[in-house]
Amino acid sequence: MAALAPHAGHAQIIGITGSPGVGKSTSTNALVAELRKRDKRVGVLAVDPSSPFSGGALLGDRVRMQDHALDPEVYIRSMASRGHLGGLSWTTPQALRVLDAAGCDVILIETVGVGQSEVEIAGLADTTMVLLAPGMGDGIQAAKAGILEIGDLYVVNKADRDGADQVRRDLRSMLTLGERPEGAWRPPIVKTVASKAEGLDEVVEEIEKHRAWLESSGQLAVRRTRRARDEIEAIAVTALRARWGDVHGRSELDDLAAAVATGESDPYRAADKLLDSFTE
Amino acid sequence: MAALAPHAGHAQIIGITGSPGVGKSTSTNALVAELRKRDKRVGVLAVDPSSPFSGGALLGDRVRMQDHALDPEVYIRSMASRGHLGGLSWTTPQALRVLDAAGCDVILIETVGVGQSEVEIAGLADTTMVLLAPGMGDGIQAAKAGILEIGDLYVVNKADRDGADQVRRDLRSMLTLGERPEGAWRPPIVKTVASKAEGLDEVVEEIEKHRAWLESSGQLAVRRTRRARDEIEAIAVTALRARWGDVHGRSELDDLAAAVATGESDPYRAADKLLDSFTE
Repeated sequence: MAALAPHAGHAQIIGITGSPGVGKSTSTNALVAELRKRDKRVGVLAVDPSSPFSGGALLGDRVRMQDHALDPEVYIRSMASRGHLGGLSWTTPQALRVLDAAGCDVILIETVGVGQSEVEIAGLADTTMVLLAPGMGDGIQAAKAGILEIGDLYVVNKADRDGADQVRRDLRSMLTLGERPEGAWRPPIVKTVASKAEGLDEVVEEIEKHRAWLESSGQLAVRRTRRARDEIEAIAVTALRARWGDVHGRSELDDLAAAVATGESDPYRAADKLLDSFTE
Repeated sequence: MAALAPHAGHAQIIGITGSPGVGKSTSTNALVAELRKRDKRVGVLAVDPSSPFSGGALLGDRVRMQDHALDPEVYIRSMASRGHLGGLSWTTPQALRVLDAAGCDVILIETVGVGQSEVEIAGLADTTMVLLAPGMGDGIQAAKAGILEIGDLYVVNKADRDGADQVRRDLRSMLTLGERPEGAWRPPIVKTVASKAEGLDEVVEEIEKHRAWLESSGQLAVRRTRRARDEIEAIAVTALRARWGDVHGRSELDDLAAAVATGESDPYRAADKLLDSFTE
């Protein structure tokens, strides 16, 4: 990681999220094709937050991505997120740094929009792309309100279906409800038919405009510093946990936990003791 | 929390999870009624892991729980889980301890089975109850494999519908696939029609059997110690984060993050420095 660090920082990281059924894999596939037309080196990370146990991967998505499997300028990796502390945070930044240092111009990181994973993706990405489609239950209303806060770019996919314009109108009116300060980025809404590769040129243009805005506004540095901060913290906390695990042979944390479980102590006092024993 | 600690430890904590549509709220409501018949004091925590932004709560569930709203021996609380580090872990144990110390005999903690929340619930509960229902897509096959690892008790709700026996048979055969050691708990499968309050007496009996097994096998202490350990760690880590936030006026973590963002340093070296500055 130390050797890679000086070589990273070039790639634009694009988070792609949306409810099941909006066409994320097809869109990612079509977006890769459009980026390859422009001679960009592309990395793709598909993260499955729903398999904490199995370590399984998005097999279906990998199959759909086979268009690019033989292209040496496209790197595709499926990852299962693991652990109970929001799995994205630990391994995904490392994978992003490797792809970045390997010279990818664009890295697409795709996840199913369930639970908190879309928020985590937004935290890792320079540009967050939220996919919607007509006919998904109650459309926008069904989409979680959270998507209005994380999107830098909205894509209404399956735009050849009835209701696509309505989805766009609803989305537009919901996005304009909140006041945005002068100079703030106003997220565009693009219509696509990813299965026919329609509209992806406009998506790439908006992605490039957003990158330009990130640089001119100083937001790129802000976002990347915030991301580095989160990653340093995650590493430091993991290192601390490992140390707590074996101080004085039998773990001190185990003793403290036993005292809390029986009601002799409380978790706040125990946490203080744990920190004291570490700093002494 | 220190004052509450000696008074906690009496309540049996029951985690209730299952996919949307299996009837979790109706089942919780019916289970509260059954427990009240037996004169138990009941706490209910409904946790919504899908609203990291809004702080919103499970309004629908609260409405459905109005049967018990005026019963002074029933305490009901909806919580939105917050934060990007798996929201359950931070505030939920505190709420559980308060309800426990307040003399609840049983605390039901209910969550939608999406992403990692069901795993987190299982980590907090003494007894984890997994709900299923016939006609949910591909039935058992659609249910994530993870539920087979967390359930102490399985409930096939809507058992008056076609396919309930099939769900039970499928579940039974999947549960018996894995070898269990001598003396291990064998999760029972109970059929209910929660909307008609049918089968809940059997659910309560199985919950009581599981509690007896937890005590006789020593597993209750094991689970509670593990839970205390997680909670102490979470508190210690949060305290550390707060300290890292303001060392030497301008935060040292901010400086380290800026160096990583520009490629001057890498997150591992930065994490080491952060820990050094803290222990010196």
